[in-house]
Amino acid sequence: MEKTVQLYEGKAKKVFATNDENLCIVSYKDDATAFNGLKKGTIMGKGAINNRVTNHLMKLLEKNGIPTHFVEELSDRETVVKKVSIVPLEVIVRNIAAGSLAKRLGLSEGTKMSRTVLEFCYKDDALGDPMVNDYHILAMGFATEEELKLISDYSLKINKILSDYLKDVNIELIDFKLEFGKTSDGTIVLADEISPDTCRFWDSTTGEKLDKDRFRRDLGGVEDAYNEILKRLLGE
Amino acid sequence: MEKTVQLYEGKAKKVFATNDENLCIVSYKDDATAFNGLKKGTIMGKGAINNRVTNHLMKLLEKNGIPTHFVEELSDRETVVKKVSIVPLEVIVRNIAAGSLAKRLGLSEGTKMSRTVLEFCYKDDALGDPMVNDYHILAMGFATEEELKLISDYSLKINKILSDYLKDVNIELIDFKLEFGKTSDGTIVLADEISPDTCRFWDSTTGEKLDKDRFRRDLGGVEDAYNEILKRLLGE
Ligand SMILES: Nc1ncnc2c1ncn2[C@@H]1O[C@H](COP(=O)(O)OP(=O)(O)OP(=O)(O)O)[C@@H](O)[C@H]1O
Ligand SMILES: Nc1ncnc2c1ncn2[C@@H]1O[C@H](COP(=O)(O)OP(=O)(O)OP(=O)(O)O)[C@@H](O)[C@H]1O
Ligand SMILES: [Mg+2]
Ligand SMILES: [Mg+2]
Repeated sequence: MEKTVQLYEGKAKKVFATNDENLCIVSYKDDATAFNGLKKGTIMGKGAINNRVTNHLMKLLEKNGIPTHFVEELSDRETVVKKVSIVPLEVIVRNIAAGSLAKRLGLSEGTKMSRTVLEFCYKDDALGDPMVNDYHILAMGFATEEELKLISDYSLKINKILSDYLKDVNIELIDFKLEFGKTSDGTIVLADEISPDTCRFWDSTTGEKLDKDRFRRDLGGVEDAYNEILKRLLGE
Repeated sequence: MEKTVQLYEGKAKKVFATNDENLCIVSYKDDATAFNGLKKGTIMGKGAINNRVTNHLMKLLEKNGIPTHFVEELSDRETVVKKVSIVPLEVIVRNIAAGSLAKRLGLSEGTKMSRTVLEFCYKDDALGDPMVNDYHILAMGFATEEELKLISDYSLKINKILSDYLKDVNIELIDFKLEFGKTSDGTIVLADEISPDTCRFWDSTTGEKLDKDRFRRDLGGVEDAYNEILKRLLGE
């Protein structure tokens, strides 16, 4: 497995082509951004933590019947994944109102939703990743009806698997963002990452935030929170 | 039928109770507002036009199997309607991208959608009527699953009936906003108004705007546009 050209540099990861056209290598950075890139910083050690946390959770999901892009962890920061064409949607799964949802609906942060809420945002930085509904998705061709159904079903299943798993290490899964992609044979798989950058993790007992909100909101202890998640999930 | 107390004064209409507890009287005003009340003005004659246009279209819809709140036109500006408890959703039906949708998705105004798009906004002025999806609606209890299904079905049927009808008077129905309510026996009916305040009407030949966008965007000829709609629909 050899890295060839860099395909993309995002805010949190680089993606490289490899000598196998169906595989690429993602390399996780310590760079942190928030508010669609307006706030910038560095979280020391984040890249390695997010790489390892993501792979740990992707393996858990695979074991529970969710197809993912994960192939093999190469090093602290680098992982081989199936190359996919990303479905241009961010799927947000919400158990407890927080962040933009709390603000949009006038709920106080921490309000339990009476059922799990899925939201879809059109992945387009220039437009600010606007929220879209099923009608927009189908009319714009962001996904077909079958793909949308599959992505929704997977997202709800992933929520159940992760929520149950995290409860055992005293973490409440408040909400999280997923991306899906299509492999060369058209299969929909979970892609991108699952990490403190893309999830809200609250300590079940104290309610302490153990995720990127510490960076977004200048709460301090950012690195400690990321390390705490690594420790609870991988025992180190 | 006698007006008793005023129940509500909105931006475009007043609503009065009557001596029949199941009925109320709406009285249409000439006041015009846009951008959630930020822009204010008067459109001379608008109240009478919107009253008559709304009633004309509600009667057309009733004839085509859509239950509405319409009971009886009392005068130029006043109409008896069934008193409902309003479902706190604005339903937006879109055939052609315009306004907030064009902006949100980066489409140029006038782009035909490959299928009709429904959007739901939570009716709450303080929150700016935020867009919500099915999951939000069910989790927040804004409507039940059955109500949401019925409201969606009615909205798509209304779109078909109105689009066909308007085509015959050389008007293209770009998009429009609906409100539904529940009568005392729980029946869902179409409520509120259907007028140049709540629809985008474009001349089919010239594309000229014949609706509130003339006021919103300072295009001039506002009263003429409202009068033109009255003339094309009611022949006067
Ligand atoms: N298996 C995969 N194959 C191809 N691309 C992937 C895969 N998994 C994730 N990606 C994409 O790689 C990029 C990862 O970079 P990063 O997360 O830093 O991007 P970003 O700054 O968040 O920007 P974006 O808005 O594109 O997600 C994302 O665009 C993501 O969608
Ligand atoms: N049949 C009905 N019974 C009771 N209320 C109704 C009925 N039809 C419409 N309404 C309500 O009456 C009010 C009409 O006033 P108007 O349209 O001026 O309100 P508005 O300024 O647009 O504010 P809102 O945000 O409440 O719609 C609206 O709140 C509307 O929902
Ligand atoms: Mg990303
Ligand atoms: Mg109104």
